Amino acid sequence: MTLTASVVGASGFAGGELLRLLISHPEFEVVQATSREYENRTVGHVHPNLRELDLRFSDPAELESVDALFAATPHGVSMEHVEEYLDAAGKLIDLSADFRLDSEAAYDQWYDGHSAPQFLSQATYALPELGREGLEDADIVASGGCNATATMLALKPLVDAGMLAPDDQVVADLKVGSSEGGAGGGAASSHPERSGVVRPYAPTGHRHEAEIEEHFGLSLSFTVHAVDMVRGAAATCHTFPTGPGAEGGVETADLWGAYREAYGDEPFVRLVAGGGGVYRYPEPKSVAGTNLAEVGFAADGDRVVAFAAIDNVMKGAAGQAVHGANLAFGLDETAGLNQTGLHPVGSP
Amino acid sequence: MTLTASVVGASGFAGGELLRLLISHPEFEVVQATSREYENRTVGHVHPNLRELDLRFSDPAELESVDALFAATPHGVSMEHVEEYLDAAGKLIDLSADFRLDSEAAYDQWYDGHSAPQFLSQATYALPELGREGLEDADIVASGGCNATATMLALKPLVDAGMLAPDDQVVADLKVGSSEGGAGGGAASSHPERSGVVRPYAPTGHRHEAEIEEHFGLSLSFTVHAVDMVRGAAATCHTFPTGPGAEGGVETADLWGAYREAYGDEPFVRLVAGGGGVYRYPEPKSVAGTNLAEVGFAADGDRVVAFAAIDNVMKGAAGQAVHGANLAFGLDETAGLNQTGLHPVGSP
Amino acid sequence: MTLTASVVGASGFAGGELLRLLISHPEFEVVQATSREYENRTVGHVHPNLRELDLRFSDPAELESVDALFAATPHGVSMEHVEEYLDAAGKLIDLSADFRLDSEAAYDQWYDGHSAPQFLSQATYALPELGREGLEDADIVASGGCNATATMLALKPLVDAGMLAPDDQVVADLKVGSSEGGAGGGAASSHPERSGVVRPYAPTGHRHEAEIEEHFGLSLSFTVHAVDMVRGAAATCHTFPTGPGAEGGVETADLWGAYREAYGDEPFVRLVAGGGGVYRYPEPKSVAGTNLAEVGFAADGDRVVAFAAIDNVMKGAAGQAVHGANLAFGLDETAGLNQTGLHPVGSP
Amino acid sequence: MTLTASVVGASGFAGGELLRLLISHPEFEVVQATSREYENRTVGHVHPNLRELDLRFSDPAELESVDALFAATPHGVSMEHVEEYLDAAGKLIDLSADFRLDSEAAYDQWYDGHSAPQFLSQATYALPELGREGLEDADIVASGGCNATATMLALKPLVDAGMLAPDDQVVADLKVGSSEGGAGGGAASSHPERSGVVRPYAPTGHRHEAEIEEHFGLSLSFTVHAVDMVRGAAATCHTFPTGPGAEGGVETADLWGAYREAYGDEPFVRLVAGGGGVYRYPEPKSVAGTNLAEVGFAADGDRVVAFAAIDNVMKGAAGQAVHGANLAFGLDETAGLNQTGLHPVGSP
Repeated sequence: MTLTASVVGASGFAGGELLRLLISHPEFEVVQATSREYENRTVGHVHPNLRELDLRFSDPAELESVDALFAATPHGVSMEHVEEYLDAAGKLIDLSADFRLDSEAAYDQWYDGHSAPQFLSQATYALPELGREGLEDADIVASGGCNATATMLALKPLVDAGMLAPDDQVVADLKVGSSEGGAGGGAASSHPERSGVVRPYAPTGHRHEAEIEEHFGLSLSFTVHAVDMVRGAAATCHTFPTGPGAEGGVETADLWGAYREAYGDEPFVRLVAGGGGVYRYPEPKSVAGTNLAEVGFAADGDRVVAFAAIDNVMKGAAGQAVHGANLAFGLDETAGLNQTGLHPVGSP
Repeated sequence: MTLTASVVGASGFAGGELLRLLISHPEFEVVQATSREYENRTVGHVHPNLRELDLRFSDPAELESVDALFAATPHGVSMEHVEEYLDAAGKLIDLSADFRLDSEAAYDQWYDGHSAPQFLSQATYALPELGREGLEDADIVASGGCNATATMLALKPLVDAGMLAPDDQVVADLKVGSSEGGAGGGAASSHPERSGVVRPYAPTGHRHEAEIEEHFGLSLSFTVHAVDMVRGAAATCHTFPTGPGAEGGVETADLWGAYREAYGDEPFVRLVAGGGGVYRYPEPKSVAGTNLAEVGFAADGDRVVAFAAIDNVMKGAAGQAVHGANLAFGLDETAGLNQTGLHPVGSP
Repeated sequence: MTLTASVVGASGFAGGELLRLLISHPEFEVVQATSREYENRTVGHVHPNLRELDLRFSDPAELESVDALFAATPHGVSMEHVEEYLDAAGKLIDLSADFRLDSEAAYDQWYDGHSAPQFLSQATYALPELGREGLEDADIVASGGCNATATMLALKPLVDAGMLAPDDQVVADLKVGSSEGGAGGGAASSHPERSGVVRPYAPTGHRHEAEIEEHFGLSLSFTVHAVDMVRGAAATCHTFPTGPGAEGGVETADLWGAYREAYGDEPFVRLVAGGGGVYRYPEPKSVAGTNLAEVGFAADGDRVVAFAAIDNVMKGAAGQAVHGANLAFGLDETAGLNQTGLHPVGSP
Repeated sequence: MTLTASVVGASGFAGGELLRLLISHPEFEVVQATSREYENRTVGHVHPNLRELDLRFSDPAELESVDALFAATPHGVSMEHVEEYLDAAGKLIDLSADFRLDSEAAYDQWYDGHSAPQFLSQATYALPELGREGLEDADIVASGGCNATATMLALKPLVDAGMLAPDDQVVADLKVGSSEGGAGGGAASSHPERSGVVRPYAPTGHRHEAEIEEHFGLSLSFTVHAVDMVRGAAATCHTFPTGPGAEGGVETADLWGAYREAYGDEPFVRLVAGGGGVYRYPEPKSVAGTNLAEVGFAADGDRVVAFAAIDNVMKGAAGQAVHGANLAFGLDETAGLNQTGLHPVGSP
């Protein structure tokens, strides 16, 4: 049985990546890819890696009936069109922030409110490593944000092990690639201005904090830096654990225990913490093009540093969405997501 | 029926890429990966993309018996060990230059001679787009050089169409990534010295000229530049065709005809010549991680510019070798080689 | 005696570089920097390297009276405003293409005509290494184009020595940085799309051909590639000399003779041709931020390869303009242009 | 009056940068540049930016008598040769860590001890923004470490203003360029492995912590990441101030007050904190090639984030050393250090 799928917002980076994944997915068949700007153009016109694909962008106003509608549109679009999407599709897999938070109040606090709050209760947050409950019955699968994903994957084992108390200081210092800025561009994204940077683009108050606080009950200090890569998000989380699980101090062996406990069976998490050679801690390069997260840690007296590295277009967007869809439709959760990374590779 | 395979020289970039391809190849099973330097280490120690692989490097002096031995060693090693390799394996697929040329005299001219010339006649050159004859019976499959591959793929349709006469001026100006320098490093390859370069590293006389002259009977002017990418080789071939096929001048339509004729059925060649959007001519970025070659052209009065872009580690090395092996063993020639590229991607 | 200067189009890359040079120039004083888009903003708002400068952009419609007006505007603006500029200033130093060619016919052929052809005779082309005649009396100093500059500096010694005959094949293969695209940006210039490229963006027919043909009487084949750097233009000129100066063949010693003869006394040309170490031929990295051109060559049988590398924003634009202005005002021609490059440096 | 100077360890990156600065310094004259590896080679052989310089590397065992000896050798060399250096020179300006800490005990704790502890009392630490006392009489000027410099410049105003209490949590998260690894190279520094990284290379326990704790009495959590640039060190310091100066909370206006108070007259500090445009916070790109530090901050509830960005080869090494030497010899402290940065520039 093949499931039909459409990608709305298919000319963006996450949309293109969804197409890349879905065309070789064993269970989904892409029947529509929409783009207002590139209507009637081949998808290969925008995504050169997909030149062989015989598919043209169509008008998002004329949605076909499908099993799964993947929305890779800018924030605010999905909430506006959610009824339309649910009319057209059995399930909506939304990659934007529009259904990630669980209350209208949260949208009032972190965003500019929500125009369709009555649908929030039908949505299930889908960073599967945080929990798979409810995903099989979800009408709306709300895929996590890229920076929140990296941060939460780094921290989850410390939370699960009771090492972090609610008031513990947690500093998340992120380094991200230019694809997070989207396909549109603008002065700050132009190559001469964006090359070679270490640029604090969100020194405080990034909206992804909202997801993390909602899930972990932690109050986080969040700072995001743009660095010179295209794909990738790396979270370095500096924590000072005082929770019950941290009593007596946290040693490296404790951390191996906690991280193995949390991720032992996870198909998309790879633990990298010390060892020899060039690649000793998580790096975005090592997972570029894949749905893997590298997660690691280091003990440093009162401090525990937790690392995670992902490909923001994959594990941070399209890959996570397909993962969520696999679960929502009851498929093998790794279906279509077994890409292996490259070595060597330049800027991912 | 599964074929057993070993990779000799598996800690280098081409060797690692062979492992990446072979572990997801439907017909081959990797039974050995050798490395003197990293003996007993896991392959993931060197190749972070292969951390999940349960395989350790072993001693190249103790070869197991296999169907296919892939040699990804530096030039000169294969000719020294060829008897040993053929004792151990049904077929040798050699990625070095050691069996690419067809005579001892050619090795005297271009290299430092050949230590096992009696084996040259058992070798078949394997850039399949140039011809597949003899590959099925080959004991030694000699995979083409990366820069020669890019250059020949650009030029072949002009040769086939009789546009290029033997004395026609052909200038091949190449731009290549740092992975061509291999995993070893050295001062010129260090990041501070190698970043951001446009460096004429072989202003004249690159050895890959030999392969091209042998196959096409052309006398070529060859210049290779290092540029800031890791994977990729791009050939810009400036030609001034006066052959019979160029009589009356060469127009864009003639070129489309010639290139379609040459590559219409080739599974790994993608024609890109003009059109709109950002990606109008061949680019290494667009094929990074894949076995594809982008090939294109532009007519300019008396001049025809022919372009080709490949991933030097794939189509220029490991991918081409697997392609040759597929043909030598009578398999589907695309088996294990259907990777799709990424968009966007930084430096491939 | 201090000369007053204004920079029109000062928010662009060349305009900003003019400001950088003029503020530390011993003879010029900047009195005005214009920008329509950033009127009233400090120059440091756009050019972070000039934050200490106490100067705000002003309206280009209200030009102050100065000795020297540097126009760093897009092509077509100077010809439209030339009367205005010459009313305001003793001399116009124009960085655009508007006064580089010497006849209206040439503008009809290569551009969209010329709206002020009566001023062409008052303009003197100012790539000083080609000749300084007429510069001291010039009302309009027409600074050369970046790609033409690199190409002509590579070729001039061969022309001067009579090695190149008018019909000799000359292929100029250029590799250029993203700053050539200007400050504006656009999809093709966005970091995700522009990173890591080897992109044939002008496969044939670049307008800078016009300048070269006018000066050297050569018919040139020109191809320009975008590569991953911000500053820099590198020209690799493949020539097949048959002129009287090439009789009996061209050897390396002949080339050293010709290049030394042509550039022995030039303050801004550095010959780099072979030798040991990492940096053996011209590289843009080595001259980034300076007004230097590295020029080199290699003999290869019938072929001579001539190389030149410049910083397109300096020797290819602002530095060359200041050089021309120095000559036009009878100053020491190196005044304000003695910057030393950096080592190591990433992408210049 | 000209002061004579020698550079020991002149083939390294900091040594080459010292040469660049000293040859255009109004008061110093370089009389010797040593390198064992490159003895008798021109300095331009190693440093392509200095090709015009008529100077050859000489044997470090044969030191000439000079006013100032700059030692840019690896850690451990200066302590071994300090008597020799002080015999040859009026003053030793040491760029290594060998005289930065003030007690043998500190070297026992952080390094492998000290072989000439009797000279420690003759050394004065020279990050001038921390204090200029003692510099004029110093025999040994101990120039600060690059990462410590960036971190301390970010934090100093908070310390001076009494905002930070000794036990306050301070997390310094650094991002640094490949030139910090030195000219030698090695596998981790090779271009294919080092390109495009976000690599936690010192997750905990970087030795520069020692300097910071000695000067500020703070206990710091330090993590250093390699990112894809050549020059540059950026410190993001996450602090949670509870000192007397932080009573009642710290607002943006308080921070402007503290930072202006600390740095108002400093010639090499530029405050960048918010504002519009592309460049709103400190970035290494903006100061590449200069002795400037960009310093900034952001208030975030209980957290204050302090930023600093420097060129590690300049403000973090050679520029800081010349700054210290200027002070030690009673010269204008900005002499020879007025370089302006570039815009645009790629990876600095």
